[in-house]
Amino acid sequence: MSFETHLKAVVSGVEGAIACSLMGFDGIAVETYPAQADLASPVDVQGAWIEYSSILSQLKNTAEILRTGNVVEVHVGTEKLFTLIRLVNNEYFVVLGMLPEGNVGKGRYLLRLVAPQLKSEL
Amino acid sequence: MSFETHLKAVVSGVEGAIACSLMGFDGIAVETYPAQADLASPVDVQGAWIEYSSILSQLKNTAEILRTGNVVEVHVGTEKLFTLIRLVNNEYFVVLGMLPEGNVGKGRYLLRLVAPQLKSEL
Repeated sequence: MSFETHLKAVVSGVEGAIACSLMGFDGIAVETYPAQADLASPVDVQGAWIEYSSILSQLKNTAEILRTGNVVEVHVGTEKLFTLIRLVNNEYFVVLGMLPEGNVGKGRYLLRLVAPQLKSEL
Repeated sequence: MSFETHLKAVVSGVEGAIACSLMGFDGIAVETYPAQADLASPVDVQGAWIEYSSILSQLKNTAEILRTGNVVEVHVGTEKLFTLIRLVNNEYFVVLGMLPEGNVGKGRYLLRLVAPQLKSEL
């Protein structure tokens, strides 16, 4: 399966999903579904994710210093956008943007399922 | 009600909860329950939260630049600690540390209830 197929399955499976992307910790997206994600949303989804990828790198470093184990997932909820991030491997993560009133629990569940699938195809 | 009463109600109400704290964005805890939180956990919970408070400040600034609205909540899941943060006002937030296998949805729900109660008493 292509990356796009996996990302589309997540977006289609969650009420309130805006877009899903496979990204590197450098903030560069490998693949995004829908490709024109920002056209589907009143907020700058991809701009937010680039900022979050930098913060995610900091959290990874923090986890190495503290005795908390590796970072597995990070969620950032703002008034207009709820973002769920799940690490795929040491270089890539999958990120899902949702409306704040969407089904966050379902989004979290689907990212948990899709992360190992993406990992096996990287 | 005292801050401790509110924090204790959250910890008691969530399966897998380790500790709950009312903290300032400067990383200083106003009140924590249980007070000796790190004794109840194999990980450096309070050390992690001090780091997270600095990252939370960055996310607040990012939200001002992007068109995403104010930050409402942030979750950081590591292999040994799941942390839920909910903003109380512009200076304080409430943070809950849980075992990763705990009931995250319930924790999120209780923080949503307790945040306005803490706000009204600050």
